[in-house]
Amino acid sequence: MSPALVHIIERYENMKKFFEVTSLAQVFEYMSDFPLVGTEIVPLPETDGRILAADIVSDVDLPDFARSTMDGFAVQAASTFGVSEGSPAYLTVKGSVDMGDHPVFSITTGEAARISTGGMLPEGADAVVMIEHIGEIDGTTIEVYRSVAPGQHVVEKGEDFGKEEIVLCCGQKIRPQEKGLLAAFGRETVDVYQKPVIGIISTGDEVVPVNEFPASGQIRDINTYTIASLVIKAGGVPVTYGIARDEFEVLFEKCSQALAQCDMVLISGGSSVGTRDFTIEALSALPDATILVHGISISPGKPTILAKVGPKAFWGLPGHVVSAMVVFTVAVQPFIENIGGLSPQAKNEPKISARLSRNVSSAQGRIDYIRVRLTETKGVLWAEPVLGKSGLIHTMIKADGLIAIGENTEGLDKGAEVQVIPF
Amino acid sequence: MSPALVHIIERYENMKKFFEVTSLAQVFEYMSDFPLVGTEIVPLPETDGRILAADIVSDVDLPDFARSTMDGFAVQAASTFGVSEGSPAYLTVKGSVDMGDHPVFSITTGEAARISTGGMLPEGADAVVMIEHIGEIDGTTIEVYRSVAPGQHVVEKGEDFGKEEIVLCCGQKIRPQEKGLLAAFGRETVDVYQKPVIGIISTGDEVVPVNEFPASGQIRDINTYTIASLVIKAGGVPVTYGIARDEFEVLFEKCSQALAQCDMVLISGGSSVGTRDFTIEALSALPDATILVHGISISPGKPTILAKVGPKAFWGLPGHVVSAMVVFTVAVQPFIENIGGLSPQAKNEPKISARLSRNVSSAQGRIDYIRVRLTETKGVLWAEPVLGKSGLIHTMIKADGLIAIGENTEGLDKGAEVQVIPF
Repeated sequence: MSPALVHIIERYENMKKFFEVTSLAQVFEYMSDFPLVGTEIVPLPETDGRILAADIVSDVDLPDFARSTMDGFAVQAASTFGVSEGSPAYLTVKGSVDMGDHPVFSITTGEAARISTGGMLPEGADAVVMIEHIGEIDGTTIEVYRSVAPGQHVVEKGEDFGKEEIVLCCGQKIRPQEKGLLAAFGRETVDVYQKPVIGIISTGDEVVPVNEFPASGQIRDINTYTIASLVIKAGGVPVTYGIARDEFEVLFEKCSQALAQCDMVLISGGSSVGTRDFTIEALSALPDATILVHGISISPGKPTILAKVGPKAFWGLPGHVVSAMVVFTVAVQPFIENIGGLSPQAKNEPKISARLSRNVSSAQGRIDYIRVRLTETKGVLWAEPVLGKSGLIHTMIKADGLIAIGENTEGLDKGAEVQVIPF
Repeated sequence: MSPALVHIIERYENMKKFFEVTSLAQVFEYMSDFPLVGTEIVPLPETDGRILAADIVSDVDLPDFARSTMDGFAVQAASTFGVSEGSPAYLTVKGSVDMGDHPVFSITTGEAARISTGGMLPEGADAVVMIEHIGEIDGTTIEVYRSVAPGQHVVEKGEDFGKEEIVLCCGQKIRPQEKGLLAAFGRETVDVYQKPVIGIISTGDEVVPVNEFPASGQIRDINTYTIASLVIKAGGVPVTYGIARDEFEVLFEKCSQALAQCDMVLISGGSSVGTRDFTIEALSALPDATILVHGISISPGKPTILAKVGPKAFWGLPGHVVSAMVVFTVAVQPFIENIGGLSPQAKNEPKISARLSRNVSSAQGRIDYIRVRLTETKGVLWAEPVLGKSGLIHTMIKADGLIAIGENTEGLDKGAEVQVIPF
């Protein structure tokens, strides 16, 4: 073969590779190429939704005393063994304990102490008899009709969390209950991952700012606002760079600026036919840039670009807001969560399972994302595909989430169990 | 009957009524007694999660031009009627339209224009033939193998939203897609309901601030932080008033202050045995106060108080954080959302349906809330009851949500379909 022919074949193979779409699974393999953001210390009241950057170890036993879970009488369980309605045990009441009291007396066999829910068991007591199972003879004597086992109606010292136990793990998202636990262990400040700072650039000569009235053929900049909002939901901080005209210099300048200031950059519009070349050109001209993905086998969202510029991810999202939302939800958000320190094990987002309300067809060789609305009929949750042309924004307004139809299926039948990715 | 006896019977009936628990359905009937908060105007970028205080009407057609949804050729559909692979139509290419172009030519029968996805149809065109269904003869002629119907592969002018259409309704929560739509219609600022301001008071002599090391029998203030976090999730703004000692004057003072500054007040701890009386006393002493509910037939969470003080709701939540979380989630949050203007029709929170992983028993006459963890096995979502004594905080950390077992059931069987209220 002539050297010229070899050269042509090589170029052809490279081009083919360049236009080959990547599967979503392969895209996720690049996740580990991007380092986590740094950490910071924030006051406890401001930790909602943040990601723990260190394990949390308890500094006290919780509870730090054996506590009654009922209103009743604290006893030694052995004092009640074998009792019944017909043959009660008679116990002497030594005192009374309300929640917050610190009993100064102790009890032994044949003795009891009146106790409130949450009250501290006096020394010697190991169980609580419910108020319903005793009779009061006089001020100092009760009869007990029901036996209790040691530990019954009692939370033991350290039963919830023991001192020096790891109670929350690094990488966990802080919900109200985790915040409460941080308070329980005296964390006035908490070590968390910084919120990833995400730059957002819109492109397209037909796009005008929100404060302008669009001329015929123009459209206001929807993507900047939608994507910023998605970034907030994903735990990031959006920084918006406005609209870049379809010119190499303008785009290159905005990209350079965003990359310098952010942990990740999202450009929308640049991957569709009109402006795709400018995005690729501008990205390729940035120092230390590699195009990792140029096309993902999903629909909508195929013309998506993922590049690595230095240590940072740079995404080219489709220009149409519906496609951009889908790509963000299924691909970009996991990358933001990952650099933001969220542990995959700690993702406690509830999964939603529903039944498909009608047959849906799908192309093989790609994942199809179908917008669905959730409706409940007689306790069964149905995922109802939202009708209408795929590019229409109102399909997103009407939808509660997405369902995925896998690469190897031609569709799903009515009644099929589906997992819904909520919006 | 003697007047004295009548008086005694009346007092007894009143007392009985006072201690009668209220069903959750009855509690919700009080919702309309509390007026909505005011409205305010906020810049578009800050509208995430806010509630629209007015309908949004479109000021433009969206799209404002007939747009291609495919790469291909814009044609008059009639030019393609009856064509096939064996008998194609031959059309003359009049020009080319990229996304963002404003075509200055028109086409007629027998003519076509190359068009990109998102491109504006030239005058005269009413459909698009996909690039896959044509063959290029030379620079100015194509052959078309497949017929198209009028409107095929085209989004018509105003098809997404027509000018002067109501596109979003008052009371709707703003998600990323709604924010995008507000941008599309040029709303630089948006009229939304104010975030309800919710005062939070902790009570209990055994509760110490987070920055103190608890002595034996004491516990740090978990509730303030957990409840504040729940308020944020419910769309409110928490204002914390710290810990009130179990003394009438202290509690009365804090309650008065919180009621003056907030739209609703939540006091936790004051409804449990030890401090319940102080809460009722302090509430009753406030001007224009009515106790509406004293006990709800739910578990956990029975000792809950709801009072109306002037126009404002005042809740006494159980002291234990687990019970407080449950009451907040099932009862308080809907009240906050309601005064915050959220329309019940517009609640687009996905419902989660799962199958119960084991039998669960329940008492009749009350709704039992069971903490569950969600796990997926072979595409089926299971709700697995979290084991452990009900008062333990770690049951909340492990849980993804709650399921309700109704007042008239004695339990649910393994495999039963349940609705999960996510945390």
